[in-house]
Amino acid sequence: MTCYLAFDFGGTKLSAARWDRGAATWHSQRRVFSPPGADAAYDIATMTALGRELLAGERPLAIGVSFGGPVNHQTGVVYLSHHVPGWENIPLQAILEEAFAVPVRADNDANAAALGEHRFGAGRGLDSLLYVTVSTGVGGGWILNGRPWRGHQGLAGEIGHTVADPAGPVCLCGKRGCVERLASGPYMAQDLAARGVVDGPVTGQRVAELAAQGQPDACEILQRGARALGVGLGHAINFVNPQGIILGGGVTKSGAAWWQTVRQTAVATALPEFHFEIIPAALGDDAPLWGALSLAADLDGKWSGSV
Amino acid sequence: MTCYLAFDFGGTKLSAARWDRGAATWHSQRRVFSPPGADAAYDIATMTALGRELLAGERPLAIGVSFGGPVNHQTGVVYLSHHVPGWENIPLQAILEEAFAVPVRADNDANAAALGEHRFGAGRGLDSLLYVTVSTGVGGGWILNGRPWRGHQGLAGEIGHTVADPAGPVCLCGKRGCVERLASGPYMAQDLAARGVVDGPVTGQRVAELAAQGQPDACEILQRGARALGVGLGHAINFVNPQGIILGGGVTKSGAAWWQTVRQTAVATALPEFHFEIIPAALGDDAPLWGALSLAADLDGKWSGSV
Repeated sequence: MTCYLAFDFGGTKLSAARWDRGAATWHSQRRVFSPPGADAAYDIATMTALGRELLAGERPLAIGVSFGGPVNHQTGVVYLSHHVPGWENIPLQAILEEAFAVPVRADNDANAAALGEHRFGAGRGLDSLLYVTVSTGVGGGWILNGRPWRGHQGLAGEIGHTVADPAGPVCLCGKRGCVERLASGPYMAQDLAARGVVDGPVTGQRVAELAAQGQPDACEILQRGARALGVGLGHAINFVNPQGIILGGGVTKSGAAWWQTVRQTAVATALPEFHFEIIPAALGDDAPLWGALSLAADLDGKWSGSV
Repeated sequence: MTCYLAFDFGGTKLSAARWDRGAATWHSQRRVFSPPGADAAYDIATMTALGRELLAGERPLAIGVSFGGPVNHQTGVVYLSHHVPGWENIPLQAILEEAFAVPVRADNDANAAALGEHRFGAGRGLDSLLYVTVSTGVGGGWILNGRPWRGHQGLAGEIGHTVADPAGPVCLCGKRGCVERLASGPYMAQDLAARGVVDGPVTGQRVAELAAQGQPDACEILQRGARALGVGLGHAINFVNPQGIILGGGVTKSGAAWWQTVRQTAVATALPEFHFEIIPAALGDDAPLWGALSLAADLDGKWSGSV
């Protein structure tokens, strides 16, 4: 009983890792992709099998889980997955507690990533921060007073559906000009593709590449997204006055011009007396896995990792 | 040593009150207005004199102060008053601690009002809330996990300068269409006066009265303000997921149509899975004074009021 197990389930990708107490890094790590047509039952069987493989007969002190979708952190029940069928009201915590006979704690991936970056990444030393992932969607998680703030229903951090431009295009949520509608990878790709000026399939990454080459439509769409995100961050800063903002996710790899516009717009939107920094995430795609490790370590209370 | 002293200094109005331990209501209360030309030295002398009068020779357990302007809650130093000269960097807490030889705690009026409503008013039983005053300005204070959340620099709650309409009129802060620019009393009055359709001086209250009588310009301006406030509240809800929102200040007395628009717009702006209530403040203009009492009681740790 000297190790922790951490899971990060994103939708099609499952990461699992084992940390031994007192170690300086992961003992072992596995990453698998779900086949098309996989459902919750398949994913749970895979998690359990991967966990057993990593444990190799050992019993962990505790298990932490980051889930890519809404989770009740109090009960460990998953509300649903936006990507995989069958996850409606699945008591994931109870299932894993029974399978491994140890305490389990689960949270959504934005909260887990915020916790991971706070404990092990770019947020070390910050007493309050907002972590925002800018990727397929735009979501966030708070650390306030050094601890996760999840909100009354566990839904806090929904920066993606702040209206940045009431005259902007319609978002899936029904409102116009949401941060997610303007700044997320797939929506930027959709908007560029709709202009008919680019050959071949368009992705969020392709928008950034074309903008870096000076393609005017790509530049305009990427900058518009950066401004929308900056407005949302400026509002979050005015409301909550965190010490720092940490940005992660694929879109944050869009280059210096993108970062400059995000920062300038946030500064212009926040009142002048607010001081804050906007910095890149340090843990990349592994932030939620580190957060899952934190959840497990907090459960056990005997954390002695040397990171 | 069985009483607390509470001060609420707004700018031109000073309220002071004494609460005796175990009592069911204030022992005594005084309210005075500063003469034109008063400065910080005058106000401090008035506070001290009023306090001594209420104490009548008794020494209080602790003193709490609500100040109508930015205050460093940690040190009790006032940054400035927007209404009265001479308050720049005044160590109010230290001055009162020396004058009364007891512990003193000070906070800005929005945070104090949030605390007052949480402990004694409309926010009793809510674990998390945003208190917003809609009056000369629009400002807010948070209670999270049952305690004030003041932010990294003590500036949290700045909902007044959220941009609700990027195409709207220019605000004093330099941005366009801020919640305060559209929803505060003086700005609504200014916009109605500028239309030249109303005789005599226009105040925020007059806008509400004319709207109640069906005057179309007044209706439009009041409704526009209610929508802007609803957008700001919806964003705050998406970001922080509080259990409730409490609205106080003169503009909240503008009638049922105003409340309906605020609520409907907040519901439309927040994502559908967010549940919250938007309710009127219960303590009226005294909310900051009740907050000051809470600050004093928390310092002392021996609160036994029966409210």
